[in-house]
Amino acid sequence: MNAHNIELRIRYAETDQMGVVYYSNYLVWFEIARTEFFRSKGLDYCRIEQERKIYLPVTEAYCRYRSPLKYDDVITVTVELTDAGRSRISFGYRVKKGDRTAATGYTGHVFVDEKGKPVAVPGFVREAFFRG
Amino acid sequence: MNAHNIELRIRYAETDQMGVVYYSNYLVWFEIARTEFFRSKGLDYCRIEQERKIYLPVTEAYCRYRSPLKYDDVITVTVELTDAGRSRISFGYRVKKGDRTAATGYTGHVFVDEKGKPVAVPGFVREAFFRG
Amino acid sequence: MNAHNIELRIRYAETDQMGVVYYSNYLVWFEIARTEFFRSKGLDYCRIEQERKIYLPVTEAYCRYRSPLKYDDVITVTVELTDAGRSRISFGYRVKKGDRTAATGYTGHVFVDEKGKPVAVPGFVREAFFRG
Amino acid sequence: MNAHNIELRIRYAETDQMGVVYYSNYLVWFEIARTEFFRSKGLDYCRIEQERKIYLPVTEAYCRYRSPLKYDDVITVTVELTDAGRSRISFGYRVKKGDRTAATGYTGHVFVDEKGKPVAVPGFVREAFFRG
Repeated sequence: MNAHNIELRIRYAETDQMGVVYYSNYLVWFEIARTEFFRSKGLDYCRIEQERKIYLPVTEAYCRYRSPLKYDDVITVTVELTDAGRSRISFGYRVKKGDRTAATGYTGHVFVDEKGKPVAVPGFVREAFFRG
Repeated sequence: MNAHNIELRIRYAETDQMGVVYYSNYLVWFEIARTEFFRSKGLDYCRIEQERKIYLPVTEAYCRYRSPLKYDDVITVTVELTDAGRSRISFGYRVKKGDRTAATGYTGHVFVDEKGKPVAVPGFVREAFFRG
Repeated sequence: MNAHNIELRIRYAETDQMGVVYYSNYLVWFEIARTEFFRSKGLDYCRIEQERKIYLPVTEAYCRYRSPLKYDDVITVTVELTDAGRSRISFGYRVKKGDRTAATGYTGHVFVDEKGKPVAVPGFVREAFFRG
Repeated sequence: MNAHNIELRIRYAETDQMGVVYYSNYLVWFEIARTEFFRSKGLDYCRIEQERKIYLPVTEAYCRYRSPLKYDDVITVTVELTDAGRSRISFGYRVKKGDRTAATGYTGHVFVDEKGKPVAVPGFVREAFFRG
């Protein structure tokens, strides 16, 4: 399955004075889930950047906030590969607390070289995600 | 005009190891622009929450990243009211560095009471935004 | 032993453009370790705040940065109770990556009521930490 | 005078569920004040890093929290050069809201090259700070 789950416990630093998680933090969780998804496929995002000088910046991000989350809540973030083009790749996300969906979202990305020029999705990435 | 500009200088804390602004921070700037927009209309968001017990959580947020931003860049964030329903209100955003648009986005919000139940857009908010 | 360990993996969002962890994030980890330390003693910090209306703000924080930490590093944060007075309590911290100490630090705290007035360290806290 | 003031308005994102500023954010403000202090001396910290490959990591940071700060508070952060050695330099900070001191602190730094090896405080830095 081209999906991956991570579990997180919400940090005090992630709350705001409304007593719930501040809205930008969901994008941080999306990124952690995405990184762990890569890792689960044998891809070390860190090394890709350092050794291959290929980067995967975000081109767009969306989050739909369905029900608030609080400090100390344990959540599951599910990420799946939703689309892949020549240079582009998209991921979908679902944040759940128990059975309740707290948020959904997506991010779009493009593989670029050191100068920011789009490059084809590297073969080893394509293989890792589409092999199984 | 139902729009407002703020100017920000990018903080070191907002960068990541790719040498550019980490993607969730744009949502923080959107929120600052939104708050200042309220203030420019004579609305103190802080007091609305505390005194009227009316809250305006985000229901959705979107950002399109067009060109990267760096530490110490001075940016302008323009926010405008794009839509208002019975309980709902939407804002559009444009982040510019000089003449270059670095990002665009939008957020959707709903006015709720202390229990999280949607309430009509308060009259004083409606007046503030639509009066002029 | 009045100490507790947590393990964390460093987030991309925690790095800055120098390619290492931005310095304020260590205080976030200290707080996570502290909270988990409370939990390991059967104390739910979240509930203490909500139910007992007793708060434990930080009065001082110190961090000594010994060697830089990078994205994706797995670290251990050890927290121990170092001192406890009538209203005050102090914790010491050590951040390690493998055998290497990356940082050390401490925080001081005071138990206060809803109005911010210092109160004696609650009995159930004292018991939890000094019982074993 | 070897001191500099900046004014900041506290961001919603900087609050936590206790309704006050989360404690690690003070270090972010210290860094902003420090950077602006450099700028006021004609030193572009950004360019020093990029062009001279000299970095100024933090070796220690301390903050004493005297009275809480809230969302939308306008604060003044004063930074001053407190000490300078061969490779080392220290700054002191004071955070005020109106006449009230909300926090004080300090940071220690060391000038290093790209490999992290300490180097003498660059001449142009020494001149900038001690010339007037």
